[in-house]
Amino acid sequence: MRAAPVPAAVCRSTSMCSEKTGPAWGGSTLAMACTSRAMRRRLPVLGWLPRYSLTCLRLDVTAGITVGLTVVPQALAYAEVAGLPVQYGLYSSFVGCFVYCLLGTAKDVTLGPTAIMSLLVSSYTFHDPTYAVLLAFLSGCIQLAMGLLHLGFLLDFVSCPVIKGFTSAASITISFNQVKNILGLQGIPRQFFLQVYETLRRIGETRAGDAILGLSCLAALAGLRAMKSRLHPTASMEPLATRASVLLVRSCATARNALVVLAAGLVAYSFQVSGSQPLMLTGSVPRGLPPFDPPPFSKAVPNGTVPFGRMVQDMGAGLAVVPLVGVLETVAIAKAFASQNDYRIDANQELLAMGTANLLGSFFSSYPITGSFGRTAVNAQTGPQCTLVLLSLAYLTSLFCYIPKAALAAVIISAVIPMFDARIFRTLWRVKRLDLIPLCVTFLLCFWEVQYGIMAGVLVSGILLLYSVARPPIKVLEQGVLLVQPGSSLHFPAADHLQDIIRDRALAAASPPRSVILDCHHVSTIDYTAVVGLAELLQDLHKHGISLVFCSLQDPVLRALLAADLEGFRHFPSWEEAGEAAMRHTHGCWQAGAPREPGE
Amino acid sequence: MRAAPVPAAVCRSTSMCSEKTGPAWGGSTLAMACTSRAMRRRLPVLGWLPRYSLTCLRLDVTAGITVGLTVVPQALAYAEVAGLPVQYGLYSSFVGCFVYCLLGTAKDVTLGPTAIMSLLVSSYTFHDPTYAVLLAFLSGCIQLAMGLLHLGFLLDFVSCPVIKGFTSAASITISFNQVKNILGLQGIPRQFFLQVYETLRRIGETRAGDAILGLSCLAALAGLRAMKSRLHPTASMEPLATRASVLLVRSCATARNALVVLAAGLVAYSFQVSGSQPLMLTGSVPRGLPPFDPPPFSKAVPNGTVPFGRMVQDMGAGLAVVPLVGVLETVAIAKAFASQNDYRIDANQELLAMGTANLLGSFFSSYPITGSFGRTAVNAQTGPQCTLVLLSLAYLTSLFCYIPKAALAAVIISAVIPMFDARIFRTLWRVKRLDLIPLCVTFLLCFWEVQYGIMAGVLVSGILLLYSVARPPIKVLEQGVLLVQPGSSLHFPAADHLQDIIRDRALAAASPPRSVILDCHHVSTIDYTAVVGLAELLQDLHKHGISLVFCSLQDPVLRALLAADLEGFRHFPSWEEAGEAAMRHTHGCWQAGAPREPGE
Repeated sequence: MRAAPVPAAVCRSTSMCSEKTGPAWGGSTLAMACTSRAMRRRLPVLGWLPRYSLTCLRLDVTAGITVGLTVVPQALAYAEVAGLPVQYGLYSSFVGCFVYCLLGTAKDVTLGPTAIMSLLVSSYTFHDPTYAVLLAFLSGCIQLAMGLLHLGFLLDFVSCPVIKGFTSAASITISFNQVKNILGLQGIPRQFFLQVYETLRRIGETRAGDAILGLSCLAALAGLRAMKSRLHPTASMEPLATRASVLLVRSCATARNALVVLAAGLVAYSFQVSGSQPLMLTGSVPRGLPPFDPPPFSKAVPNGTVPFGRMVQDMGAGLAVVPLVGVLETVAIAKAFASQNDYRIDANQELLAMGTANLLGSFFSSYPITGSFGRTAVNAQTGPQCTLVLLSLAYLTSLFCYIPKAALAAVIISAVIPMFDARIFRTLWRVKRLDLIPLCVTFLLCFWEVQYGIMAGVLVSGILLLYSVARPPIKVLEQGVLLVQPGSSLHFPAADHLQDIIRDRALAAASPPRSVILDCHHVSTIDYTAVVGLAELLQDLHKHGISLVFCSLQDPVLRALLAADLEGFRHFPSWEEAGEAAMRHTHGCWQAGAPREPGE
Repeated sequence: MRAAPVPAAVCRSTSMCSEKTGPAWGGSTLAMACTSRAMRRRLPVLGWLPRYSLTCLRLDVTAGITVGLTVVPQALAYAEVAGLPVQYGLYSSFVGCFVYCLLGTAKDVTLGPTAIMSLLVSSYTFHDPTYAVLLAFLSGCIQLAMGLLHLGFLLDFVSCPVIKGFTSAASITISFNQVKNILGLQGIPRQFFLQVYETLRRIGETRAGDAILGLSCLAALAGLRAMKSRLHPTASMEPLATRASVLLVRSCATARNALVVLAAGLVAYSFQVSGSQPLMLTGSVPRGLPPFDPPPFSKAVPNGTVPFGRMVQDMGAGLAVVPLVGVLETVAIAKAFASQNDYRIDANQELLAMGTANLLGSFFSSYPITGSFGRTAVNAQTGPQCTLVLLSLAYLTSLFCYIPKAALAAVIISAVIPMFDARIFRTLWRVKRLDLIPLCVTFLLCFWEVQYGIMAGVLVSGILLLYSVARPPIKVLEQGVLLVQPGSSLHFPAADHLQDIIRDRALAAASPPRSVILDCHHVSTIDYTAVVGLAELLQDLHKHGISLVFCSLQDPVLRALLAADLEGFRHFPSWEEAGEAAMRHTHGCWQAGAPREPGE
């Protein structure tokens, strides 16, 4: 059941290169498979490199150029958000995607500067590159430590409704964030609600050139995608001309981002040559790679140096918030893609990859990076082999200044719009209404701040989970005896609840002395608090002349109850036998209990 | 199974007054019982007041004097810990116990200033009574709000091992805290480890008078308690003299705290009259009740006033920490007593009672109060009717100055020592080893700071709980087909885990195409993330020519799976039928699937 209307057909051709893992691995012997599997788990690059082919290379050249054309202007914009000189955006872009390409498990994700991370960086590093680079180094260390300690299982606690809420909200936020570029508006604030307000207020200032170009690009992209999803692979029996034309259209559709950006760049260039420029352009970009230097562990100021300890103290909560939001964002995105493109992610490996990327990145003057939603959405459709991005960075930067911002906006919008999943609300209403709560909380709060949305969603779904553990379904049947059947294992938050239910039902009856059978059929584990609760219940019911017997105990539960040495503990293999024994006991107890009661 | 070696026989006679609730209520009709029960739930005083008798009054006079003799010097000491003038300790003592006596559900708990709360108050209120009283008011509001919102269920998450760890550690800490008074040492620091170090280092400075008095009191208390627990109720056929002597010894044993303190006071008084005083005394106490005034919402300072907002800002995290630690401490104590003295506490009612006590207390210049461990332990053995404490406060204060500190220390030590439960470690080792982790974490951290111990314990047991939900027991059987049976409900953190297990087992087999039967017998609820996980699994196994069928679905789970409209979803009432169907399907699928595979 794939709820999102994802461009599955588009994705499939891209993931061709590494999709052969399954059958290849199935053919080898089990022992060999295990060794190679363990190695590939740590270095996923070993999985795809031996099978790298000319077909892959062709796809990757297209991908590299397209990604390069998208990443570079984005990086410049994000560096501005982070309050750093524009080249830091570029420095942050290439190490991350290179490392992730070697170590990451989600092949559709690339690491790099993102809007959210840039915002966090700007609020914790005082617009100072020294602090930003040190923060990248320390965040990397924290993420590596989490990965090495195998804390990746924590990410299982990001549930599907939270991810859906986040991706749906993010697709709206990111799309709307690009509307200003399509309309040619400048000086629009970053906060979503202010952005909507300002964009609508200033819609009259729309620049005709940008709007026409942007909308044309959007239309072209939508058309090419629709064409691609309707084209079926041609059979070899069809005429050559048909096959060639289908292949041509398919290639154009696959490289549509690059084509659209190239065409828009040519239009902008011809305007530039003719002397008038109606379009907003990306502007000039400094060329070359960043220097390789260890991250700064102190900072020189006019009257001395700021030592390491002081810098760490200055960043304060940022050292917790930045690595955690980074991991949460990456894994949320990775999970979304894993479920779309049908592969699984290893959270510990993601942590190692992110940690290494941030750590290495800080040696190349990178600020903290994370899985990017906007850019990832582009990659998912054109492939992530990152060496080519590096080449683009080194040699193509001088051409980037002619790219119109409206064309890039169109590429981003057309990539993220399909991630909005309106049907999820209806699906959850039908399947599990309670899950609408984390979905809505995440969705709505993400418009305010994405990190608050994700955190609130995780918190709400955690609370709902704990609540369901604390209040397990308990079936109560009255058939002469009281038959009580908890629907799941008994954990400490449920101990009092079970006790209250049985006590209320047993003591509230018209003729109090009766028997209670606790059917532990579905109870697979029990903890000490629950055992104590049952012991209290046994004593309490005994005081009122009511017997409590257990039945259908699973082995671990029986062992725990026997070890606890409960007073008056009796158990039977089935509830029928327990019922018979209980009935006999009730009559005996009632006769013996009656004279005792006044002395109690 | 009562693990703590509690003075049960001692407790029973005290709780006589309110223990008749059960039978009285059992006799009335159900409808009447419900109404009166609801009223009594909100005003527990209605439960015991109509049955208040002369016997109760006699016990309560003893209790009042004993409690008064203990509470007042403690209150003075705690006020010093909080950094406030000593009378604030007294002001904080009486409203709390009066309110709790009307509204509280745990009859053994009294509210008042405590060591922990005093420490928190000292760190958040700058040794300024204005701030302390405002903090009491605001904490009361927060606790009332929690009670009205029925957030009491949150306290179910304080598990038994955490409470045991806390009470055991607290009994050691509180006892050791009193050793300095027995030895007559002054200027010992409050922090436990420093206290142990300083006490041992300065043991040579022991004052003979205090030590002799203190140890004699301890011996007397231990002897009287031992005597009481060995005395059996006399039957009416025995001679009058025997019965009278037994009754006398019983009364002495019950009022032993008061007797010991009175005797010690007389000794001190005779020394005072004779002119030499070898004992440390409590010293003079200001007499009279505090004024009734609304809490201060602003503070006058030499150069203007500090407004309300500024005061709130100054207290900062204290506004979260103080009410929460207060509730946690009270409920932990109330739970410990409820399990000892066999009654149940209503957490929402506890919140309302504590909130009201703090709110009202702030009108009587009280600082934040909570359930007191040391004092509560005394009350549990002598009864909690608090009007008499108020009378003691108003009329007996002038006598309190002669109470030797060593005698009070002996009372406290003999009350808290039985709360140390060494057997819990062995019990947990036998019953549930995993529960030793929260126990040890709580126990050890409580020596550092009690609030950290409780919080860490709650956190650790919460993590273990979430882990058990995330990794439910999953049985896997291979009998031609793969039979997989999750041991509990499927929640989102377990979705990936189940998928991984089935995938690994199904695909790692020598002959990959086989059938998988998912036996959902123990699955009583399922959430959307788990449904999505199963959908992915169905698709994924189908790709590899493996069929997945479900069996023994409970109604809510079946409804959710049908609503989700899974592709290829098939289910059967029992695993035998599922097995047959799966075998048939496997053969069919294998034949159909074989030619399809290369095209995949």
